Amino acid sequence: MEEHAADPSHPRYRSLLMRHRLEIAAEKGMLADSALIAHGRGEAYDYLLDEKTSSSAHVATQVALGALVNAQHPVLSVNGNVVALAGDEMLLLAAKLDCPLEVNIFYRTPERMQALLSDLHERKTRLGIDAEILGAEPDATIPGLKGPRAKCESKGILQADVILVPLEDGDRCEALVAMGKTVIVIDLNPLSRSARRGSITIVDELTRCLENMLSMDRTQLPSLESYDHNQTLQDALNTIVDGMRNKFSDGKE
Amino acid sequence: MEEHAADPSHPRYRSLLMRHRLEIAAEKGMLADSALIAHGRGEAYDYLLDEKTSSSAHVATQVALGALVNAQHPVLSVNGNVVALAGDEMLLLAAKLDCPLEVNIFYRTPERMQALLSDLHERKTRLGIDAEILGAEPDATIPGLKGPRAKCESKGILQADVILVPLEDGDRCEALVAMGKTVIVIDLNPLSRSARRGSITIVDELTRCLENMLSMDRTQLPSLESYDHNQTLQDALNTIVDGMRNKFSDGKE
Repeated sequence: MEEHAADPSHPRYRSLLMRHRLEIAAEKGMLADSALIAHGRGEAYDYLLDEKTSSSAHVATQVALGALVNAQHPVLSVNGNVVALAGDEMLLLAAKLDCPLEVNIFYRTPERMQALLSDLHERKTRLGIDAEILGAEPDATIPGLKGPRAKCESKGILQADVILVPLEDGDRCEALVAMGKTVIVIDLNPLSRSARRGSITIVDELTRCLENMLSMDRTQLPSLESYDHNQTLQDALNTIVDGMRNKFSDGKE
Repeated sequence: MEEHAADPSHPRYRSLLMRHRLEIAAEKGMLADSALIAHGRGEAYDYLLDEKTSSSAHVATQVALGALVNAQHPVLSVNGNVVALAGDEMLLLAAKLDCPLEVNIFYRTPERMQALLSDLHERKTRLGIDAEILGAEPDATIPGLKGPRAKCESKGILQADVILVPLEDGDRCEALVAMGKTVIVIDLNPLSRSARRGSITIVDELTRCLENMLSMDRTQLPSLESYDHNQTLQDALNTIVDGMRNKFSDGKE
């Protein structure tokens, strides 16, 4: 880990901790080549969001949790960066919702799949929780996607009515929406294709969002009907814009 | 290289080309651990700037070139990402300005220094140009910095009156400014410490900026006195903000 990162009082502790988690995952062969660049893009947006969960993102998180709680077949989809950054939190959420978690990666190779599945099973044992981990035996495909990236499990992603896809590729997000699913996106870039195409988008950092979701009162959640997608994305842009307005012109920094 | 990247008509050709250059540099041991994450942050800001050189950035580039042309001892400082992304362009600029280029890296190890110096000498031979490459024999230090990151050459960075530091770390940028130098920063994040602390800041993508600089008419450059630092940074923020305003609220995307 980089200097100072072991000290939780360091202002960049959390950011350095996330980098450390990615370093470990990279060593284990869990990540795609583009993983670190993608993480850097996220860091830039989180910086612009002042590294805080906005009230709008908090409401979107509540709506998303409500959709998962009320689903017939909720599924949590995880890729390399998600397992690296928040494998524990995703497993804890799956256990709490009593739903499967499915490894589903864009650049699919047997080696990466094995590394991710092993890591998740180790985490599950360490956490001492019960959660079904899918992805090892794909027997179905997501319509509209080509090649290995279309693979999924029939008892997981294929039959899901509500699916959580943190840090998802735009093509796959669109393909899942086209299947008629309620697709919940967690993405720091409110302008990304995933953020725009998702049914419910939470513009927040992954671990902050999941910690919020895990601690929420499940009896007091707003309805999906109350969720305004465009307004949620615009709220995120406004948060960024408000931080930039007159930042230099008025002499302040 | 990732799919489609070999086709220059692909809308993401340039972005994929830059990633490809980083992959090659990583294989050669030229990059720090944080290099790809830093590049991803840059990608996010360039996306917000619509991947174009703004008129304000163009003027800042002209001012910067004028400062280099009129300097007594101009020096171009390069780190791992700069050599990876724009080693050729930096050497061409050094040849054009008849000034030294100095390898100066934050996470300094003998192996990385050697990899960067070898790469630059190979490029120089291939380009068939004359440019002095410094950094191999540091005999001075930048005051205010600790450890290996303070090292520099007395006939290079130490004596420079005007120094170009693309993609520079904030601490080192501040230390160079504190030495009384005119520090020219190239940085895609107008809010970064380097961007704020630099004497002249060009908020633009590195290779776009250098290509502009290499093709500029050197007889028609605006003076340093005409440069408004805060306004230049605010212009960059305004470009970002203008792209975000009412992006979703009015129903457009």
